[in-house]
Amino acid sequence: MERQSKFEHITLGQRVLFGTDDAAEHLAGEVERLDATRVMVITSVRQRPEAERIIAGIDPVLIHDEVAPHVTLGQAENARNAAINNDIDLLVSIGGGSTTGLAKAIALKTGLPIVAIPTTYAGSEATNVWGLTESSRKTTGVDDRVLPVTVIYDAALTLSLPKEVSIASGMNALAHCIDSMWAPRTDPINQVLALDGIRTLSKALPAISNNPDDLTGREQALYGSYLSAVAFASAGSGLHHKICHVLGGRWNMPHAQTHAVVLPYVLAFNAPAAPGAAHRIAVALSAENAVDGLNSLRAAVGAPTALKDLGLSAEGINEAVQLILPVVPVSNPRPVTQENLTALLTAAHAGVSPAEPMR
Amino acid sequence: MERQSKFEHITLGQRVLFGTDDAAEHLAGEVERLDATRVMVITSVRQRPEAERIIAGIDPVLIHDEVAPHVTLGQAENARNAAINNDIDLLVSIGGGSTTGLAKAIALKTGLPIVAIPTTYAGSEATNVWGLTESSRKTTGVDDRVLPVTVIYDAALTLSLPKEVSIASGMNALAHCIDSMWAPRTDPINQVLALDGIRTLSKALPAISNNPDDLTGREQALYGSYLSAVAFASAGSGLHHKICHVLGGRWNMPHAQTHAVVLPYVLAFNAPAAPGAAHRIAVALSAENAVDGLNSLRAAVGAPTALKDLGLSAEGINEAVQLILPVVPVSNPRPVTQENLTALLTAAHAGVSPAEPMR
Repeated sequence: MERQSKFEHITLGQRVLFGTDDAAEHLAGEVERLDATRVMVITSVRQRPEAERIIAGIDPVLIHDEVAPHVTLGQAENARNAAINNDIDLLVSIGGGSTTGLAKAIALKTGLPIVAIPTTYAGSEATNVWGLTESSRKTTGVDDRVLPVTVIYDAALTLSLPKEVSIASGMNALAHCIDSMWAPRTDPINQVLALDGIRTLSKALPAISNNPDDLTGREQALYGSYLSAVAFASAGSGLHHKICHVLGGRWNMPHAQTHAVVLPYVLAFNAPAAPGAAHRIAVALSAENAVDGLNSLRAAVGAPTALKDLGLSAEGINEAVQLILPVVPVSNPRPVTQENLTALLTAAHAGVSPAEPMR
Repeated sequence: MERQSKFEHITLGQRVLFGTDDAAEHLAGEVERLDATRVMVITSVRQRPEAERIIAGIDPVLIHDEVAPHVTLGQAENARNAAINNDIDLLVSIGGGSTTGLAKAIALKTGLPIVAIPTTYAGSEATNVWGLTESSRKTTGVDDRVLPVTVIYDAALTLSLPKEVSIASGMNALAHCIDSMWAPRTDPINQVLALDGIRTLSKALPAISNNPDDLTGREQALYGSYLSAVAFASAGSGLHHKICHVLGGRWNMPHAQTHAVVLPYVLAFNAPAAPGAAHRIAVALSAENAVDGLNSLRAAVGAPTALKDLGLSAEGINEAVQLILPVVPVSNPRPVTQENLTALLTAAHAGVSPAEPMR
C-alpha cells in the first residue's frame, strides 16, 4: 500500500444509456425526458438512412447532414445558424467523431443540450473537448457546455464500421487508456477506469478482427471506448497523444491509424520508468508484461505497424522530434531527450519491434 | 467475454480534491474559484476547533454548529433560516455524515452549492441522496441540488476518528461496494469503481486497526470510501442495505456497526448465486474466495460480529423478516424466502460463521 499523492479529479456529469438495438427507443425516451419539442438531428450523408431509422419515433424539425471529416469554422457557422433560425431546443448527433464534433460546435455558442448517438469508437461523446479547424489549423478547447447530456450506445450501429477502421479506432481508444496512466492529470480514479477500458478492448478487438459481425465484441469495444474517453478527458494528453497530435497536424496523417502505430513504442519507452503502471496494464491485458501483451494484441488484430506506411518520410523524423520536444508533458515518467525520441520515432517509422530501440 | 446487458448509468458531476494536510488551502481555493463572498460553515460542536483551523484562510459570515446525529426537520429549518437571513452564497460542511446531511437539507430548499469536507467514511459527500427525520421516521430522497459541487478529502482530519468507529465506518463503506455488485442499478461502470473500493478498503482497514495513526491506511480508507459512495449512489440499495435499513429504523441499531455485522452473511447468501461477482470480489480482496476473504478481513480488524450485541433480540428476528421481505430488490441474484432470510438473520444475530447457514 502506498501513500496517496495529492490529486484533483473532475467527474463530468452525464447519463449513459447502453443497449443493443435500443437506440430508437432510448432516443424517444430522452426527447420526452428533456421536454424537447424542436429537435435538430446532425448526421452525415452516408449515415442518413440509418439515422432516419433511429429517429422514426421522434419528430425532428431539421435534419442537418453537412458533416465533413474536420469541423471547419464555416461548417460550424452554417449549422449554428440553422439551429438558431429553427428555434432548436435539442441537438441529436448520430455518427462518428466529426458528427459529434459538429454538434459540439453548435452547443459551444448556443448552450443547446446534446444527445449523442456514436457509431464509432472515437469517444468524443464522453468529453467536454471541442475542436474547430480553420485554414488547416485546428483549435481545441474545453467547455462543459459541449459535453452531451446523454449518450446512447447501441452496438448494432457499429456493425457497419469496416473491420480495418474498427481496429484502428479501437486501438485509438486503447491509446487513450494507456496514455491516461501517466498523463498530466492521471489519478487513481481515471486509472481504474482506464484499466477496465484496456481489459475490455483487449478482448473485444481480436473478436471483431476475427468476425466484424460479432455483437459481443462490438458491445465490449463500445463500452471500452466510452471508458477510454472518460479516462482521457480526466487525465489529459500524455506523451503518446502529444506525438500523434504533432504527426497528424504537420503531415495530415490518419488519426486512428497513427495512434495504433505509435502506441506500442510509447508503452515500451515508458514502461521501465513506470513499473507500477506497466504491471497494471499487463494485468489488464492478461499478459506477463505490458509491452509483449500489446505487441501480441497488435499482431492479433492486424493493426498497422509503421509510420512510413501512413505518410511520414524518413526525412520528417528530425522535424517531428523538434516539434514534439517542447510539448512533452512534464508528468512523463521517463525523461524525453532528442536522442531517445529520435530512436522512438525511427523505430515507429520503420515498424521494427517496439521493445528493441528502448533498451 | 459476455454480451453486455442493457443499462442506464448516471454519472454525477463533481470535483474531488484529495490531499493530506491540504484542506485549508483547498478550501480557500474553492471559495475563490466559486466567487463566494458569504460563506456559511456547518460543523459540530465537537469538531468546531478543527473546523476553525481549516477555515482560517477564509472569512465566513456564519459558523453553524447545531448538528445532531439525525437531521430533524426542526434542525434543518433553523439552519435554512440562518442561511437565508444571512444571504449566504456557499455552504461549507466540515464533519461526518450528519454534518454533510444538514448542509444537504439547506441545499435541498435553497439550491445553495456545498463544498463538503468529510471527516469520516460515511460517503454522503459523493451522493445526491438526502435524509430528514421527523418523529423518528426517516424520509430520504434523491435530488441533484444536494450533491456537493466539490469534495475536499484530507486524511489528516480522520486521524481523530476512534479506531472502533473507523473500522465500523470503513466496513460500512465496504458494504456499499459489495452490495453494489447486485444492487438494482448495478452496471459495469459502478462495478469497476466498487471493486477498486473493495481492493483499497481491504488493505486500508487492517492498517488502521493495527495503527490508527497510519496515514497511508487513512488515505486509502478515505479514497475507498469515496469510491464506495459513488458506486452506491449509482447502483442503489441491494439486499444488504435493505436489511440494515430495516434493522436501523425499527430498533435504532447503530448504522455502521450493523453494516459490519450483516455484510458477510449477505455475501455468503448471494455468492453461490452470483459466481461472477463473487469471483471479482475475491480478486479484489486478494483471497481465494469472497466469503473467506471477507471473514478474514472482519477478524483482522476486530469488527463486531453479532446483531445480539447491537440491540436486536432473538424475538425480533421474525418481525425483521416480515419487514424485510417486501423490500427485497428484485435484482437480488438469489431468491429470498421467509425461510432462508430467517436463517440469515438467525446466524447474524448469534454471530456464527457466515458461511454455515447458507449451505
